[in-house]
Amino acid sequence: MNSNPTAATLLNRDDLIVVTGAGGFIAGALVKYFADQGFTRIRAVDKKPLRQWYQRVPGVESLSLDLSYRDNCKRACEGAVEVYNLAADMGGMGFIERFRIECLRSILINTHMIEAAYRAGAERYFFSSSACAYNTELQKDPNVRALKESDAYPAMAERGYGWEKLMSEMFCQEYWAERGLKTAIARFHNVYGPFGTWDGGREKAPAALCRKAIEAQETGQYEITIWGDGHQTRSFMYIDDCTLGIDMIMHCDDLIATPINLGSSELVSINELVSLIAEIAGIELERKYDLDAPRGVAGRNSDNTFIGFNLNASIGDVLTDCVCRNHGPNLGT
Amino acid sequence: MNSNPTAATLLNRDDLIVVTGAGGFIAGALVKYFADQGFTRIRAVDKKPLRQWYQRVPGVESLSLDLSYRDNCKRACEGAVEVYNLAADMGGMGFIERFRIECLRSILINTHMIEAAYRAGAERYFFSSSACAYNTELQKDPNVRALKESDAYPAMAERGYGWEKLMSEMFCQEYWAERGLKTAIARFHNVYGPFGTWDGGREKAPAALCRKAIEAQETGQYEITIWGDGHQTRSFMYIDDCTLGIDMIMHCDDLIATPINLGSSELVSINELVSLIAEIAGIELERKYDLDAPRGVAGRNSDNTFIGFNLNASIGDVLTDCVCRNHGPNLGT
Repeated sequence: MNSNPTAATLLNRDDLIVVTGAGGFIAGALVKYFADQGFTRIRAVDKKPLRQWYQRVPGVESLSLDLSYRDNCKRACEGAVEVYNLAADMGGMGFIERFRIECLRSILINTHMIEAAYRAGAERYFFSSSACAYNTELQKDPNVRALKESDAYPAMAERGYGWEKLMSEMFCQEYWAERGLKTAIARFHNVYGPFGTWDGGREKAPAALCRKAIEAQETGQYEITIWGDGHQTRSFMYIDDCTLGIDMIMHCDDLIATPINLGSSELVSINELVSLIAEIAGIELERKYDLDAPRGVAGRNSDNTFIGFNLNASIGDVLTDCVCRNHGPNLGT
Repeated sequence: MNSNPTAATLLNRDDLIVVTGAGGFIAGALVKYFADQGFTRIRAVDKKPLRQWYQRVPGVESLSLDLSYRDNCKRACEGAVEVYNLAADMGGMGFIERFRIECLRSILINTHMIEAAYRAGAERYFFSSSACAYNTELQKDPNVRALKESDAYPAMAERGYGWEKLMSEMFCQEYWAERGLKTAIARFHNVYGPFGTWDGGREKAPAALCRKAIEAQETGQYEITIWGDGHQTRSFMYIDDCTLGIDMIMHCDDLIATPINLGSSELVSINELVSLIAEIAGIELERKYDLDAPRGVAGRNSDNTFIGFNLNASIGDVLTDCVCRNHGPNLGT
């Protein structure tokens, strides 16, 4: 099915794969993804104490290390053949609009990790960037045109969080240009699915809205508070598509050091998302709009032309339509 | 004369002032500037071994510390009332076009230093940014219009070096916004003067060209190699104006967390600079042009409207015309 090079076709099963941020949502799923393919030496790293990891995969070396420290990055990368760096201090809009310093300080993680990976002799290095790296001026209309990769420059990224992503992308580009380290850069667009953060202040819109719907069911108070006017639009990518996409981007030599969108291209408004959640829950929700709450840009979508061109066409199509595939109903019209 | 608030008018003479990068050109002069005003507790910090510092000032606590390490920044900031962070891995175009990773990695210094200054309870924090933070698209013509502060965004900074400066500016802005640390940000435009780096690969154009003229005198081979076609333009600021400007910007409450130009507004081409140097040396030089050498942007000048507006007008004028004042002949037409 998938004719693109992947870890399964390129690596030995006992090559050491390092995944950071593994106590969280996406990187945790990535560890599971590699373990399911029979890789026997996976090192999972996260700042959180092990008992707080969203998922733990048996047989995986799991380390609790704060990767904003140089020595910890060195330890994390020892013997690595491939490094997937997804560690960051981040969250949904509620977090990144409030804790900009913390978001900026993730630059410590990325600066130390790429140097440690390089020094450890790793063959490939993956960095998880974000759609927040895009110029926010292009995202002021809910009926936004989809963002293509070149839209990041000239830059006016999401304050704090987005700029850190852009800067870390540059590190990846310069380590390739100056030192020949094969780096891969994916700009994630709103990933959702099992083990996604759903409370505590770092959750993103889909999980937060699901939680609110469940709370409505449990309390019998069929109200839901929506941040903003609900007209803001996004695209949403299911976690399994994200892990597959990471693998393909990491092993595509045409994409070395080249930031690329990884997301669905199907635009959905927050109001539409609420309707869908309510329908699945079998309830009707009275909507209240908190216009003072963080809401991010007005509209954002992923243009997947470039990834379709660079990866095998059929797989490109799969990624393009990932939300619609087999993970749930079509969220759009 | 100077009615703007300065360290001399605001601080006690025994308040601890920390200056980083003090083994180099500008920060070394800044240490001297404060010592000359009678400050009794100055801490000078640089990565270089003490014997390699460009100047050492008697009575100053001088520490050799690598500030890309968190603990060293903590030590550097202990007890500080004011922190002037000028430490960076940098140089002229010959350095910053070749060592982009090193330039990017200065983000470690700035990330650790501002956090350490904040935790130490410092009252004010100064960051030395650069004209390299400006959008390079606006600097493609030697007859460039002068750059005003808002021209940095949307951003297309100098690759490597310029982006790091922009990101570190953002840290300063967010520490003020989120934590109330009074930060000051000056974008330096080509500083020259005594103790400037003049060889070894990190020197900038004025010192490099002076060195080449002296070499021509000494060898009797009256040739000079110029990087690029010599039509590229810059403005140049004498070091004494830079130190005065740093002091005034640091203590101007209207400029907190606000990037501001610190430079001359007099545009000079590299060819004009060579003519001036040859005239002072009393020699004639045959010019050879190395069109493959690093040359940076085509043109760059400093628009000083904003600093003139925010600082006392007469001092604003002084800064505007700093090169022409009393440090040498008028470099322009």
